[in-house]
Amino acid sequence: MEDLIQTNYALDTFYFLLMGVLVMFMACGFSMLEAGMVRAKNTSEILTKNVALYAIACIMYLLVGYNMMYMDAPEGGILPSLGWLIGVENTTEQVLAGTAGGVAADHSERSDYFFQVVFVATAMSIVSGAVAERMKLWAFLAFAVVMTGFIYPVQGMWTWGGGWLAKAGYSDFAGSGIVHLCGGAAALAGVILLGPRAGKYRADGTVKAIPGCNMPLATLGMFILWFGWFGFNGGSELKLSNVDEANAVAQVFVNTNIAACGGLVAALVLARAWFGKADLTMALNGALAGLVAITADPLSPTPFWAMIIGAVGGLIVLLSIVGLDKLKIDDPVGAISVHGTAGIWGVLAVCFNNTDATIVGQLLGIVGIFGWVFIAGGIVWLVLKVTIGLRVSEEEEQAGVDISETGIEAYPEFGQAA
Amino acid sequence: MEDLIQTNYALDTFYFLLMGVLVMFMACGFSMLEAGMVRAKNTSEILTKNVALYAIACIMYLLVGYNMMYMDAPEGGILPSLGWLIGVENTTEQVLAGTAGGVAADHSERSDYFFQVVFVATAMSIVSGAVAERMKLWAFLAFAVVMTGFIYPVQGMWTWGGGWLAKAGYSDFAGSGIVHLCGGAAALAGVILLGPRAGKYRADGTVKAIPGCNMPLATLGMFILWFGWFGFNGGSELKLSNVDEANAVAQVFVNTNIAACGGLVAALVLARAWFGKADLTMALNGALAGLVAITADPLSPTPFWAMIIGAVGGLIVLLSIVGLDKLKIDDPVGAISVHGTAGIWGVLAVCFNNTDATIVGQLLGIVGIFGWVFIAGGIVWLVLKVTIGLRVSEEEEQAGVDISETGIEAYPEFGQAA
Amino acid sequence: MEDLIQTNYALDTFYFLLMGVLVMFMACGFSMLEAGMVRAKNTSEILTKNVALYAIACIMYLLVGYNMMYMDAPEGGILPSLGWLIGVENTTEQVLAGTAGGVAADHSERSDYFFQVVFVATAMSIVSGAVAERMKLWAFLAFAVVMTGFIYPVQGMWTWGGGWLAKAGYSDFAGSGIVHLCGGAAALAGVILLGPRAGKYRADGTVKAIPGCNMPLATLGMFILWFGWFGFNGGSELKLSNVDEANAVAQVFVNTNIAACGGLVAALVLARAWFGKADLTMALNGALAGLVAITADPLSPTPFWAMIIGAVGGLIVLLSIVGLDKLKIDDPVGAISVHGTAGIWGVLAVCFNNTDATIVGQLLGIVGIFGWVFIAGGIVWLVLKVTIGLRVSEEEEQAGVDISETGIEAYPEFGQAA
Repeated sequence: MEDLIQTNYALDTFYFLLMGVLVMFMACGFSMLEAGMVRAKNTSEILTKNVALYAIACIMYLLVGYNMMYMDAPEGGILPSLGWLIGVENTTEQVLAGTAGGVAADHSERSDYFFQVVFVATAMSIVSGAVAERMKLWAFLAFAVVMTGFIYPVQGMWTWGGGWLAKAGYSDFAGSGIVHLCGGAAALAGVILLGPRAGKYRADGTVKAIPGCNMPLATLGMFILWFGWFGFNGGSELKLSNVDEANAVAQVFVNTNIAACGGLVAALVLARAWFGKADLTMALNGALAGLVAITADPLSPTPFWAMIIGAVGGLIVLLSIVGLDKLKIDDPVGAISVHGTAGIWGVLAVCFNNTDATIVGQLLGIVGIFGWVFIAGGIVWLVLKVTIGLRVSEEEEQAGVDISETGIEAYPEFGQAA
Repeated sequence: MEDLIQTNYALDTFYFLLMGVLVMFMACGFSMLEAGMVRAKNTSEILTKNVALYAIACIMYLLVGYNMMYMDAPEGGILPSLGWLIGVENTTEQVLAGTAGGVAADHSERSDYFFQVVFVATAMSIVSGAVAERMKLWAFLAFAVVMTGFIYPVQGMWTWGGGWLAKAGYSDFAGSGIVHLCGGAAALAGVILLGPRAGKYRADGTVKAIPGCNMPLATLGMFILWFGWFGFNGGSELKLSNVDEANAVAQVFVNTNIAACGGLVAALVLARAWFGKADLTMALNGALAGLVAITADPLSPTPFWAMIIGAVGGLIVLLSIVGLDKLKIDDPVGAISVHGTAGIWGVLAVCFNNTDATIVGQLLGIVGIFGWVFIAGGIVWLVLKVTIGLRVSEEEEQAGVDISETGIEAYPEFGQAA
Repeated sequence: MEDLIQTNYALDTFYFLLMGVLVMFMACGFSMLEAGMVRAKNTSEILTKNVALYAIACIMYLLVGYNMMYMDAPEGGILPSLGWLIGVENTTEQVLAGTAGGVAADHSERSDYFFQVVFVATAMSIVSGAVAERMKLWAFLAFAVVMTGFIYPVQGMWTWGGGWLAKAGYSDFAGSGIVHLCGGAAALAGVILLGPRAGKYRADGTVKAIPGCNMPLATLGMFILWFGWFGFNGGSELKLSNVDEANAVAQVFVNTNIAACGGLVAALVLARAWFGKADLTMALNGALAGLVAITADPLSPTPFWAMIIGAVGGLIVLLSIVGLDKLKIDDPVGAISVHGTAGIWGVLAVCFNNTDATIVGQLLGIVGIFGWVFIAGGIVWLVLKVTIGLRVSEEEEQAGVDISETGIEAYPEFGQAA
């Protein structure tokens, strides 16, 4: 019996680690998606932002964020306790006695940090796409330090650390709100302070299409994100080692997959009907919106309902992308729509299938998370704007930020369109 | 003891889900391979086909296909029973009693659907490459609906659902016939009705080489397919949780890998000897042919034999590619040769190492699967041809289908060759 | 109890196989990294080298290397015994009796081969980048045969097969020395005999920058390597199925990740300070150097220390890259610095945290491995040089080796810079 406890502990730890590895790869997915959706002259810079933000997120979450989010959160509190590093590991004796840290330990503490940290990076990756092609590299990285070390962990603690949103009944399985809306809110605050790209919104009210330079890369990014999302949602069940848990994880996998399918098909058909063409980028964003939408509850719906929730996400994301352009909010990759708008839909959709969720609790979550991240993030963006500045010069933007920020062209040998 | 049954159930379910995730990623592999092997002007369209077919396959298999293939197949029958959705999950009580659905349940039903559905998408992905650069997007997607919801499940039921091919002794571990030949047969029917690309076969009998536009992308696709194939074959053992099963899964991994290696080296050396150059695309197709060839039985051969089976696959695929060109069957990515021809070789090669297989049973499988898919698929293609039409106009083909079908250029900034 | 032994055996085997699959994917990572860092005209050839070397490594290690490295190594010996293929599998009876091959078997023998073989390919992949853009394809592949079938296994046996370095106390968890320094040493010998690319070092002593042609591809490669490294280091714990082992694997995952983060940030900041720009390629090399550095001991350090070890690796790699250019040692992708120099640092850094390691033992490992591989590899390179020749002609180098070696342009439609 004691040996079986050890086997289950090992299996659950392994499950956490593998799900975490899949989520880690989402950093690559975001990089490829964003690199494919910007112009060639801004590609090296967006890649640099993406690799650096992942590293910063992991370091900040190691140094302060994880402890802030989980270790000593006062039940029902708003402010986290302070602490450093990621705590001590469970011993065999504690596991067998069932009293590691006062609660039964299913899995390694280290594996828990590993799984959680890749979520932080995901939230931050959302921001990089929205501010692409015009934000200063080092301003962005400075924001990443505060976002991953402080802004994200505070609101993460509110729900997953047992804080006031958890008490208020807010239900968010894998983070439609806590990760995706969080990233979308920070991105929105940044984009508003940053302004649109030069030439995007013309004086006559029309919008200039600025196509991405590499569609296979964008498609690759979407697929990697989809692939990684099985870890994102699948790992959020947190346990695997008995029949009920294994069935739950399987349900999450099936629903995650089919929600993406629903979003993709819905967006593709709507784009065909609306714009007259089977717009690939809308199909990609539709799939991602389906994934974001199901993330708040990939467990309760039947697969059929999961498909519908994803499909609605795919429709909403098109409306949101077109709508933001009307508001002159310039988001080169559609990140605010995919993660923010579809995230809100996902949080609300929990009420359809999960009887534990209430519309009040879900609205509280949306308002709480969006409000905190938008305001706290906005203040940080503002401080950066008045100090080191958020935006590159007009000349640098015109020439492309690759040269000014990284000194490296992404495709030095491929002829550039005039 | 009951607890250990639960642990084993969780482990086997986890195994299924992870193997399924690897196979899911093959959809990305096909997308990249095909996008690398077509011309730049047809890239967005092939990407759109690939992402959409994956979504359609998952949805159709959820709605009707899975039930048709597995749920109530009459023993030894030809026609499937009708049914909807993917059935009910095992309960803990059923698992412990060993009587879920009348048989002992090793793993979640949901995980089984998840693993199976990604096979359907694979079969359909094979088709998209062969009809590239000239087929209408929506005709292709309409075919995908019928193929994944009906044509594939019917013949899948024949073997894996306990139908007449299973009774006849047809042996196909992971689907050299059921998945790969199936996809190849549907592709062949489509290509014949569609005709070759403009200019491919000249009046003087010579063949125009139409090189793919992005070799790193094609190589990436091949590697992702190889990576995913460990799930494809490794998961088809269906169980992991004791010494014999674990050894079998390990054997499958080793053989799958070494067969690809054999195919790659054989094709590279043959290409060097035949064409005078170490043709990269032939090496890629050789590796894939090795993988297809071993798929019918990656368990019985020793690793040395697996390497030989793969190597023969690598040689055959070159002969097939050259031979199809002589027949003026235009397959831009070599999909019919890689999946169809090497698939047939794989099905036959089972007889060398697996004493349960008979040459009669294997031939029955080849004829049955090829015949059904080629005829049923051909009828669907024909109906599409006389209704909405299969082929884009000459002007659209000349200009590239990206503009006419998706409205999006894949590489708008990279100079195009004249 | 016997059933639990079987479950643990299955779990540990599965763990090996999955970690091995991740490492296998590193072959794709190297391909993409190297393809992104060379010029367009040499891309198909570097891809061909990479796919072929992986296949050759797997075949040679199957035929002779694995047996040489593990099967009958005399305790403390220098020369391996000869043998063929990969031995026999454990039976259920042997596992339950705990006496498979004289020792208790935790996992399938086949899974062990599978995990080990992907390390061999990794070592060989390191070489291909350093000799890029000027070495003959078939000379390189001939070297790969000897390297993977003989040179690597001999020194691998010295430590992991229980040979003289193991006796001497050399400690190398996952192969900073055995894999990475080994690859770096073979690369260095080859580069010295091969000479720099035409025009790289000008007569006036300045160094011509030759930028890579595809930065997203290089970034993709880096991410895939990072992703695969979780298997590389995580699997090298060799066992998972109890609390202590599971905790160890989790610690390895966390440390591997954070070391890469440390290396990335350190290299990015140093590049910014030194060159004035946030050089993306240096960030990529910094992350990889962090990974190489932690590989010798990802278990003993705390995560904080792992970050520091990685950061030092990131600093060292910049110094090494600049230093090698001063010595006119031309390494287009920085492989010698990333794997060789950072590998040496990693081997030495073991002493800080692992009380079992001694500086003498570590130095013996460095000298022994470097000496053997550099000399044995150098002799093979020399034999190739005086027979078939190592280097393409000046005209071929000028035109790009894609045409002369593979007959296929990598990007035939994208305009090339003059």
